[in-house]
Amino acid sequence: MKNSAQHKKIVSFGEVLMRLSPAENRKLPQAKTMDFYFGGTEMNVAASLAYFGEKTQQVTNVSNDLVGDAAIAAMRQFGIDVSAVNKVDHPLGLYFLEVGSGLRASKIAYNRLHGSFANITPQSVNWEKVLDDAGFLHWTGITPAISESAYQTLKEGLQVAKEKGIAITADPAYRSNLWQYGKDGHEILKELVGMSTIFIGGVNEINEILKTDFDFSKEGFIAASKALLEACPSIEKVFDKIRDGVSASWQKIYGRAWTGSEYIETQQLEITNVVDRIGTGDAYAAGLIYGLIHFDDQQALNFANAACALKHTILGDANLVSPEEVLEVIQGSTGGRIKR
Amino acid sequence: MKNSAQHKKIVSFGEVLMRLSPAENRKLPQAKTMDFYFGGTEMNVAASLAYFGEKTQQVTNVSNDLVGDAAIAAMRQFGIDVSAVNKVDHPLGLYFLEVGSGLRASKIAYNRLHGSFANITPQSVNWEKVLDDAGFLHWTGITPAISESAYQTLKEGLQVAKEKGIAITADPAYRSNLWQYGKDGHEILKELVGMSTIFIGGVNEINEILKTDFDFSKEGFIAASKALLEACPSIEKVFDKIRDGVSASWQKIYGRAWTGSEYIETQQLEITNVVDRIGTGDAYAAGLIYGLIHFDDQQALNFANAACALKHTILGDANLVSPEEVLEVIQGSTGGRIKR
Amino acid sequence: MKNSAQHKKIVSFGEVLMRLSPAENRKLPQAKTMDFYFGGTEMNVAASLAYFGEKTQQVTNVSNDLVGDAAIAAMRQFGIDVSAVNKVDHPLGLYFLEVGSGLRASKIAYNRLHGSFANITPQSVNWEKVLDDAGFLHWTGITPAISESAYQTLKEGLQVAKEKGIAITADPAYRSNLWQYGKDGHEILKELVGMSTIFIGGVNEINEILKTDFDFSKEGFIAASKALLEACPSIEKVFDKIRDGVSASWQKIYGRAWTGSEYIETQQLEITNVVDRIGTGDAYAAGLIYGLIHFDDQQALNFANAACALKHTILGDANLVSPEEVLEVIQGSTGGRIKR
Amino acid sequence: MKNSAQHKKIVSFGEVLMRLSPAENRKLPQAKTMDFYFGGTEMNVAASLAYFGEKTQQVTNVSNDLVGDAAIAAMRQFGIDVSAVNKVDHPLGLYFLEVGSGLRASKIAYNRLHGSFANITPQSVNWEKVLDDAGFLHWTGITPAISESAYQTLKEGLQVAKEKGIAITADPAYRSNLWQYGKDGHEILKELVGMSTIFIGGVNEINEILKTDFDFSKEGFIAASKALLEACPSIEKVFDKIRDGVSASWQKIYGRAWTGSEYIETQQLEITNVVDRIGTGDAYAAGLIYGLIHFDDQQALNFANAACALKHTILGDANLVSPEEVLEVIQGSTGGRIKR
Amino acid sequence: MKNSAQHKKIVSFGEVLMRLSPAENRKLPQAKTMDFYFGGTEMNVAASLAYFGEKTQQVTNVSNDLVGDAAIAAMRQFGIDVSAVNKVDHPLGLYFLEVGSGLRASKIAYNRLHGSFANITPQSVNWEKVLDDAGFLHWTGITPAISESAYQTLKEGLQVAKEKGIAITADPAYRSNLWQYGKDGHEILKELVGMSTIFIGGVNEINEILKTDFDFSKEGFIAASKALLEACPSIEKVFDKIRDGVSASWQKIYGRAWTGSEYIETQQLEITNVVDRIGTGDAYAAGLIYGLIHFDDQQALNFANAACALKHTILGDANLVSPEEVLEVIQGSTGGRIKR
Amino acid sequence: MKNSAQHKKIVSFGEVLMRLSPAENRKLPQAKTMDFYFGGTEMNVAASLAYFGEKTQQVTNVSNDLVGDAAIAAMRQFGIDVSAVNKVDHPLGLYFLEVGSGLRASKIAYNRLHGSFANITPQSVNWEKVLDDAGFLHWTGITPAISESAYQTLKEGLQVAKEKGIAITADPAYRSNLWQYGKDGHEILKELVGMSTIFIGGVNEINEILKTDFDFSKEGFIAASKALLEACPSIEKVFDKIRDGVSASWQKIYGRAWTGSEYIETQQLEITNVVDRIGTGDAYAAGLIYGLIHFDDQQALNFANAACALKHTILGDANLVSPEEVLEVIQGSTGGRIKR
Repeated sequence: MKNSAQHKKIVSFGEVLMRLSPAENRKLPQAKTMDFYFGGTEMNVAASLAYFGEKTQQVTNVSNDLVGDAAIAAMRQFGIDVSAVNKVDHPLGLYFLEVGSGLRASKIAYNRLHGSFANITPQSVNWEKVLDDAGFLHWTGITPAISESAYQTLKEGLQVAKEKGIAITADPAYRSNLWQYGKDGHEILKELVGMSTIFIGGVNEINEILKTDFDFSKEGFIAASKALLEACPSIEKVFDKIRDGVSASWQKIYGRAWTGSEYIETQQLEITNVVDRIGTGDAYAAGLIYGLIHFDDQQALNFANAACALKHTILGDANLVSPEEVLEVIQGSTGGRIKR
Repeated sequence: MKNSAQHKKIVSFGEVLMRLSPAENRKLPQAKTMDFYFGGTEMNVAASLAYFGEKTQQVTNVSNDLVGDAAIAAMRQFGIDVSAVNKVDHPLGLYFLEVGSGLRASKIAYNRLHGSFANITPQSVNWEKVLDDAGFLHWTGITPAISESAYQTLKEGLQVAKEKGIAITADPAYRSNLWQYGKDGHEILKELVGMSTIFIGGVNEINEILKTDFDFSKEGFIAASKALLEACPSIEKVFDKIRDGVSASWQKIYGRAWTGSEYIETQQLEITNVVDRIGTGDAYAAGLIYGLIHFDDQQALNFANAACALKHTILGDANLVSPEEVLEVIQGSTGGRIKR
Repeated sequence: MKNSAQHKKIVSFGEVLMRLSPAENRKLPQAKTMDFYFGGTEMNVAASLAYFGEKTQQVTNVSNDLVGDAAIAAMRQFGIDVSAVNKVDHPLGLYFLEVGSGLRASKIAYNRLHGSFANITPQSVNWEKVLDDAGFLHWTGITPAISESAYQTLKEGLQVAKEKGIAITADPAYRSNLWQYGKDGHEILKELVGMSTIFIGGVNEINEILKTDFDFSKEGFIAASKALLEACPSIEKVFDKIRDGVSASWQKIYGRAWTGSEYIETQQLEITNVVDRIGTGDAYAAGLIYGLIHFDDQQALNFANAACALKHTILGDANLVSPEEVLEVIQGSTGGRIKR
Repeated sequence: MKNSAQHKKIVSFGEVLMRLSPAENRKLPQAKTMDFYFGGTEMNVAASLAYFGEKTQQVTNVSNDLVGDAAIAAMRQFGIDVSAVNKVDHPLGLYFLEVGSGLRASKIAYNRLHGSFANITPQSVNWEKVLDDAGFLHWTGITPAISESAYQTLKEGLQVAKEKGIAITADPAYRSNLWQYGKDGHEILKELVGMSTIFIGGVNEINEILKTDFDFSKEGFIAASKALLEACPSIEKVFDKIRDGVSASWQKIYGRAWTGSEYIETQQLEITNVVDRIGTGDAYAAGLIYGLIHFDDQQALNFANAACALKHTILGDANLVSPEEVLEVIQGSTGGRIKR
Repeated sequence: MKNSAQHKKIVSFGEVLMRLSPAENRKLPQAKTMDFYFGGTEMNVAASLAYFGEKTQQVTNVSNDLVGDAAIAAMRQFGIDVSAVNKVDHPLGLYFLEVGSGLRASKIAYNRLHGSFANITPQSVNWEKVLDDAGFLHWTGITPAISESAYQTLKEGLQVAKEKGIAITADPAYRSNLWQYGKDGHEILKELVGMSTIFIGGVNEINEILKTDFDFSKEGFIAASKALLEACPSIEKVFDKIRDGVSASWQKIYGRAWTGSEYIETQQLEITNVVDRIGTGDAYAAGLIYGLIHFDDQQALNFANAACALKHTILGDANLVSPEEVLEVIQGSTGGRIKR
Repeated sequence: MKNSAQHKKIVSFGEVLMRLSPAENRKLPQAKTMDFYFGGTEMNVAASLAYFGEKTQQVTNVSNDLVGDAAIAAMRQFGIDVSAVNKVDHPLGLYFLEVGSGLRASKIAYNRLHGSFANITPQSVNWEKVLDDAGFLHWTGITPAISESAYQTLKEGLQVAKEKGIAITADPAYRSNLWQYGKDGHEILKELVGMSTIFIGGVNEINEILKTDFDFSKEGFIAASKALLEACPSIEKVFDKIRDGVSASWQKIYGRAWTGSEYIETQQLEITNVVDRIGTGDAYAAGLIYGLIHFDDQQALNFANAACALKHTILGDANLVSPEEVLEVIQGSTGGRIKR
């Protein structure tokens, strides 16, 4: 797939959320101000790819008020094309984050199930036009969990993309506390994965979708990947990352993949002073897409893993690093020498 | 009514909102942090009365998450009894504020119509217990506009209060952009005012409820008040304030009232460097309730007006001043001499 | 000229500066942090017009480092087209501002004469392409004062614009502490005004350019305008604003113009609590351009003056208001009523 | 003792201090603002227990000014009963903290020896009433060191508690730079420990009080504990924690205890990115009291140690964590997985 | 006196205080951080004079801890000679300020009566050496009110200064809430004024010292001044300022003086958007001393009044303006034109 | 050399820079404010030595504007003599810093090559006077790289110092991205080292100057040092530090030296939670100079290494620690015990 989609845009579909968080590691009652960022798992991918120099476009709804205007301005600042963003009379989704540290976990409280994105409809997105010059369409398991109309809108997009032969990257994490509109999330995720080409996930996600019971060993991962490719023939490759959390402030990660024909993996990277854990998976996905466009599978996986590692050092939801910074980490330059 | 309710608690029923606002006069895209406060028109009244030294209790729902916990902590900090606050699995209502200045108006964007308070039900409030030792019950026109169940819960509270002979203060402002659940707001406000004893509002509010057309002159106010007392016999007195806005930063206010038998008014107070306009009406209501407990009608009106004026100098939604500070303003001490 | 250029983009040429300022009214030794904004007199015009909904493009150089990247991101956030921005190996220009208050004036210290824009060259701008679909080209007297190559680059742009029949707005303020490269600023400004169509300035600027001595009365202004139109026949109209500074915190402004055939003026607007004085002239220029596109001369002047007044309430260099907000001020809505 | 005191309140007696600290790791001359928190070793215990859901009451003096009002509001926010807090005409005690990092130690400067608490008198506390429905009374070695009248007030409280059979937790750390009123601190601490039931401390504290010379080994600790129980027969159990400080930012802790009949200890917990070291001992004490109420001795010790570890991740003096968070750490969930 | 003392240093004797204040107009419970400044009425005079370019020296005690070190660093930053500052084992005095606005007054809470300066002794100051090359010694009525030893130390300094023929400026404001060590403040102030040469104060201060009852008219002021010069023959001139406080945010001031032979006064200056009211009297005193050195009495009074007016626009306790800025205000440049 | 120069001042010559940096680990587009500090490699040495209690003087140019005034105030605050600082009409040099973390490196963008220091000339420094009572003159490789006139000014200073027998410490790091005025940096550095007495640097710096190729082993270092002493006979000793960067947040350092007759080294110190990496080399130099004055070579090296380690925990460019804190680290007190 190397370079094949270069110069084509990457389309990302999903909710844009405002994140609100007391500074430092404060608990909410200890704060009088909150930092805020605009994020959202799919938009984070678009933002990171824009910082990598790719053309990206976000398809979403925002609120028709001062918050929605600021969300659009934030996407423009990242360099994301906002021409397919609609403004509707529902508030923007948001979440509150109390940042953990060491052995204390971070906590999140969401306010998104009646927001502007939950009210998106297939009628409001012109998928034919949006996907006209696209090389990739990216989606995650969050979107179909928000509302039935969000699921339908996504499904329509995948169908159009499939017809156009566009690469579809699926990050189908299952979040049990979403999925409140009465459908079986596992079934829907399986349906949507069945329309996709790249699977970003591992044994856990495969077990959820296929209702299997593979273990987390290398062998388990290979077996699970093969089972997925059999069950969902459009899927070509499976890219996973393995996280070893020493504490909220100290994480180790490496990537592994089944390319359809062989197992590959990366070295483990270690982040001893985590700045921000949010969006690290999205950084992996963005790194992977960039890698698939520019490199072979092994280097794409290296790039995804190093991008994910770097995101732990970046505040906010999006991974604001350059391809050069990622490549330097791959090449082992992790000692913190100042760049003058 | 002087002193009759002293030592009895004041119960306030309504939504607690988080307010989020960029510091200074920033527009949202100019900010990376927001100040936040907990407010809500009825809770502001309770908070101000608690600062005046009264016993107050808030009846409300908050979210069952870190935001709801912080809202409860904020009420406790104000000194409000939170034993009748329920935690439910819906997000706390909130609003965003861009603070205007001079000839630029402030802007607000709400996120409240599917929040924890909108989901309050009559079953969740034990009005008999809550009102057992109460001297006042305070409500505003916001509450019945949020949702039908909020309206029903309020109505039940007013009935219990009426049976117990508790003074009921009504601040029935009509907000047209609420009232989305299909009922006629004017009708419902009239019904609820018909169960109350003190009317906090003026010609505008009376015209809305009675569908009359009184003018804003002194005479118009007196005629409107008389019409209201005729249409809603439980109402004993009408307390109004007149605002003259030179700009967002420069406001003039005075109070006027129909006591049932005579017209009274206060001197005009001028605030040339407004710090925060939000909650000034609630400060008036709190000042009025305090005044009705401790003073005669004229001094109660003076107290309400001076409390309202002082709120323009206090950040946040609630009026954090002492009775002594209000009385000093009434006595003309407005020159800004430092208190050491 | 009403509506003629609608839908065509407005091109702005000039330096993008970082502004650094201690918060509140602090002096620099009283601060440990500074607020920063990206501005620059011409870019401020582009930003304001982008907020008005117009297509705008900035032609400039920025530094090839993290500061230049942030400048580009800031322009993207405003909604300005940055495709004609070059990155060069010279630092971005910047200035420090200590914000005055009341009878204390603000102070500015510049660092711009060896920056990225001072090193712009005619070779680095493809004026033919940039101006291909433009309706307006905007320049100010700052640009030719920075460096000889900046002057040459501007001159070339004006020639191309003239050939294409594009409206050229000139804001030729003379700043004596610039102009350090050995040329007579007055001569150069006269040459460049002679290539322009709209003159934004008044008696002072005309006297500087024509070396005349008109007084500041209405009659003086009319006479000066006529003299300018005679000396520079390409100039069609003269738009001026008159400022009466009570103090750094209290300003009064009104606009006046010579339309080529008649004298018009606006009401005076008063800003009693100035938030930010910087960029108010640029807000006037942006309002004027918007007005010339959408309205007749009188309303264009009203719009320019009200936009200028509103800028006094906005932090930073650019005027982040909507056309609706400007129109409301023109219609007299200046009392600071909150917009919910 | 398991569950025996459940539902009874815990009374804490001691000074409430304002802590003032430059943000981040700044030295004071590098700062223009300071963060502030209200703390005090005994109040920290009450605050933590309130967060655990227990009823707590603080007995103390605060200043009769705006600072004392804020201290009361802070205690209310924590959920502490403030009905036994007196306001007196002496300033609130306070301390300044420069936060260390890595191999640089934190520094504290106190201003407390003439403050409102130093002026507390036995006459101002109604111990009979305060302790009427109490299950625990908590004190530390700071209180009798502040002033003779503070010592006398404490002693009277211990006598009343003893008569009522209330459990008395003693945290008798000796601080040599206090004790300026002319008494032998070791003697007084021994006297007060002799009136208590639970000893929170270890070999060091026992050696200070008994003027013995036990070593820090497990055997030394057991021997010291036995010696203490012999010298102070009211003491039933000894709970200690062992800290291994790699640096100001990296700490290891475990708990050990002599239950009167056996030696128990916990696993060691490691905090690699310390957020705030202050109040970790108080978090241990609060965890212990909670554990003694709800669990057996081993689990109480586990709870105390895990609560102490978690406090290292919380800003400010008080340990704002829930019992669920503590239990999760005991169960080994320390990898920093986000709670959504 | 014009120019006579030029190039000689001005010595200021008094307490250095840390001021702690929530930002904006927050009340303390609304804040989590406080701004801080180092001030103190006499040090403010030294700081302002240092900014005017004069050599100044502060004689004082500070705490022997991190706070005292920061106080010394602050004085060094102002440019004040700190070689006569002693470090003692008592905490630095401090005060808390809640900043008022409009009709709400500012509030101050002090913590100074057991601080490092209250413990100053005559033995710790080598007045002979300090005053060796001094032209002025400045004192205020705060110092003798703090403690008896502070009073004795001041008295000794005045005696030495008198012997050396140094000009002594007295600002003998009487603060009733100080003076807690058992002496009659009015008597002591009269004694000390009797050793001084320049009286900074007016009818109020003279009435307090002489126990007279002059009124506040021009005639009353002249009569009071004459009475003072008769009672205290060392006093040569009396310099007063008259404040008209519209509100905490809007102040008007003018100066008046009795030169020994004639009455003079200044124009009134108006500050409509007060930034900081603290230290405005000290700015007047510093301006006066500078004026007495460099100008005649009328211009000295003008300078004092304009310096005082400018201080209202400067955050913190000290007046950080240049002589040029003061002279511009005297010359009528108060319109807020930006200085580039 | 022990104690020989005690009580003599240390003169430092070089540029004072403003450092501007988004707080926390933010990227510039994520920030609206920046922290700022005054630094500069040579001034950092002076500041650290002033904090150690030494008399220090900075010879430099600053801008003749509000920024230059603030730079002077910052130096005064550190306690540095500023009487040889000139103000010139060129902007102060500055740099922007994005602070890295973990495996992400920090990034710096400079704006200094046309600043006030680049315009320094030999005529503007009175070296005879400045060096009259000096014990040390300190310079680094940055200064001769800025501009030819800066190089000439430095050279003249070294000549005067040499004549006076003053110890000259050279920190001749070669920065390739400076040196834009057309001279061979290696040649010039060799010339200037040839005039110095103490070499602060290691194999890398020696190889650059001598164009040799020694390796980094202990043996390589000794051989390189001997070669340097042969090539530059005025050099008496070589002091090096070895850094092992685990990541931007985790560093290990130790010192080694060739004393002219023997090899010495220190233990390795580890900083696991780096607060600020900038200026750590300058802290080493300052520690070394202090050590050379007060201790023997081994302890001087220990002191330099421990000072360097402590700087990693201090924000800003200068090492604000006391000699006591450094000695405690040398003695092994690195466990973070709070100093009360």
